[in-house]
Amino acid sequence: MPEKKYLFTPGPTPVPPQVLAALGEPVLHHRGPDFGVVYERCLARLQEVYRTRADVLMFTASGTAAMESVAANLGAGSRAVVVSAGSFGERWEGILAVHGADVDVVRYEWGETPRADDLAARLAELGGTDLVFLTQSETSTGVVADVQSLAAAAKAAGALVAVDAVSSLGAVPLETDAWGLDAVASGSQKALMTPPGLALCAVSEAALAAAAGKTSRSYFLDWARTQKAQAKLDAPFTPATSLVVALDVALGLLLDEGLDAAFERHVRLGRAARAGVKAMGLELFSPDEDRSSVVTAVRVPDGIDSGDVVKGLRTRFGMTMANGQGHLKGKIFRIGHIGWFDVFDITTALAATELVLADLGADVERGVAVQAALDAFESTTPVA
Amino acid sequence: MPEKKYLFTPGPTPVPPQVLAALGEPVLHHRGPDFGVVYERCLARLQEVYRTRADVLMFTASGTAAMESVAANLGAGSRAVVVSAGSFGERWEGILAVHGADVDVVRYEWGETPRADDLAARLAELGGTDLVFLTQSETSTGVVADVQSLAAAAKAAGALVAVDAVSSLGAVPLETDAWGLDAVASGSQKALMTPPGLALCAVSEAALAAAAGKTSRSYFLDWARTQKAQAKLDAPFTPATSLVVALDVALGLLLDEGLDAAFERHVRLGRAARAGVKAMGLELFSPDEDRSSVVTAVRVPDGIDSGDVVKGLRTRFGMTMANGQGHLKGKIFRIGHIGWFDVFDITTALAATELVLADLGADVERGVAVQAALDAFESTTPVA
Repeated sequence: MPEKKYLFTPGPTPVPPQVLAALGEPVLHHRGPDFGVVYERCLARLQEVYRTRADVLMFTASGTAAMESVAANLGAGSRAVVVSAGSFGERWEGILAVHGADVDVVRYEWGETPRADDLAARLAELGGTDLVFLTQSETSTGVVADVQSLAAAAKAAGALVAVDAVSSLGAVPLETDAWGLDAVASGSQKALMTPPGLALCAVSEAALAAAAGKTSRSYFLDWARTQKAQAKLDAPFTPATSLVVALDVALGLLLDEGLDAAFERHVRLGRAARAGVKAMGLELFSPDEDRSSVVTAVRVPDGIDSGDVVKGLRTRFGMTMANGQGHLKGKIFRIGHIGWFDVFDITTALAATELVLADLGADVERGVAVQAALDAFESTTPVA
Repeated sequence: MPEKKYLFTPGPTPVPPQVLAALGEPVLHHRGPDFGVVYERCLARLQEVYRTRADVLMFTASGTAAMESVAANLGAGSRAVVVSAGSFGERWEGILAVHGADVDVVRYEWGETPRADDLAARLAELGGTDLVFLTQSETSTGVVADVQSLAAAAKAAGALVAVDAVSSLGAVPLETDAWGLDAVASGSQKALMTPPGLALCAVSEAALAAAAGKTSRSYFLDWARTQKAQAKLDAPFTPATSLVVALDVALGLLLDEGLDAAFERHVRLGRAARAGVKAMGLELFSPDEDRSSVVTAVRVPDGIDSGDVVKGLRTRFGMTMANGQGHLKGKIFRIGHIGWFDVFDITTALAATELVLADLGADVERGVAVQAALDAFESTTPVA
């Protein structure tokens, strides 16, 4: 039998067979009417998922390029504040450094949860700023920030708000319009259940107006050029048509489930993962709270290298889980549970992790994690 | 019966079923060993196709981003000369304008073939330059330039040479190392028989050294970051893993055929297209020469709008062909014949075009194009 493979990472995530089948369809020309129908529906579905009436710009690129598009179109000559509490907060910093913004950082230890009052205080000290950069799901730590309150603090100081929602869009609530978000970057390969290769950025009228006053520092990521083309159901550069066809199918699946149902499912998946991990006797690195429903980050017991856990899962069971990043490498492992996931993916991940940890000589409680996860998943505690 | 669809455009091009099947395989994690095997082989196959020992950098993006990577990494503060004879020459100009180069243009009418002595003369007038930008296949006109001689003129003046080979790589001879090319941009969706979404750029040691002396003006398209990651079989940002798997299969098919056989096939496809077009009594816009083996551009008879030809082919037969671009819109149509094409694709395109033109009341010779194309394809005239 061919080995079964399991993706338990924060992306790329497992892709449903309907979406894979769509990928294998003959290629459509990006300026033909067959593609036009799909493209129009896909862009409209993205607006539904983003909860916005604004344009969702689509780039054929990794999610990072959607983030860079914000800096390339708004950064030059701007004052910017980055809220940074992990690897992806630092990515905003790295991107902004390339595009000539004057950057101030509200910095937290990796694993801390950013607080709106810290941001408000910094903005007051600074006498305001032009742009605030947030990370909704900090994939490196498992923390999901309260973007609504952070954005409110930024708006109160008169700033435009940019959000990295690459691993969170479709998994946790995000209200682009209701929360007044001006640029929200995401990607196809996380909760949107599509292979990597499409980068997305919802852009508010205010963001577009601000960009119109500057010269884009990127040709490929130029918002005005992209918006103008999309308005005619065109794209400025050949888009990854097969991925768009696949994304359209995946978004249809997500909207058929319903966003609220998907968010609740992710909360329950997070509860299940945390309950199982704790039942084994392991310590959580990510917060033990419902909002942390994208990635569960787990400390390994003393004397164990999380790289060995990841390696053991891969070699024994064909499973991919993520090691820690940066200084957390070797110290934590991360179970991604976004997109096409159900509770039995969680129980499988837990059961295998338990075996691998036991192999490595860790002192783990055997035989209880799966039941604990199932119970937590079915818990009647209301989802906040 | 579901309507058969035909792609006769210069990209995206038809994708072989083996490649489509690979696209539909479960998604691999970009840092897992399963993907590593494919990635390593794919990068090595790209070096074979590019005829280079240099690194071929891979970006998850449209081909234009590979072109932009050259300007973003080398353009700032440089003197640049663009050889421009169509829409894609103008794209180099547009990209360079964003990245702070001092640009001079050797400009031709759309449809003219650039000449090495014109470039040499301009470079002599200018007292040299830092960078020369060439277009191998000018998809908007069907002209394939003699990159070898143009590059020699540029090298003689001490410049680094960048080539847009997006629609030509794998279809016409290109010798990255032997011709001394420093940056060669391409994309997955043309002769490489893969859906759009991967951008490629071969970069010489000299180009990398020049880039090392500058700060990249793009985070996503940073050569140094990309090269460093690829050296460890990693990627700086989540790559479009499904497209890489597909490209690997497609490159295997191309190399199994053999590059020389593929180039000869494209020459014969070009001959067939031109012979059929002329037999119908139509006038060629693209040059009537073997090198013009990527796109055959055809003038429509007076009183006919080429947009109506394109529309007729689409609505009557489910075929996609390209209208002219820019001021050639309405005046020419373009038959792309790159990648997974055989002579019966050409005869199908010709037979359908003949019918549509007759519908539109054009004075075309009926019933001779297919035979003329087949005869030309099989002609024993040696391929230069």
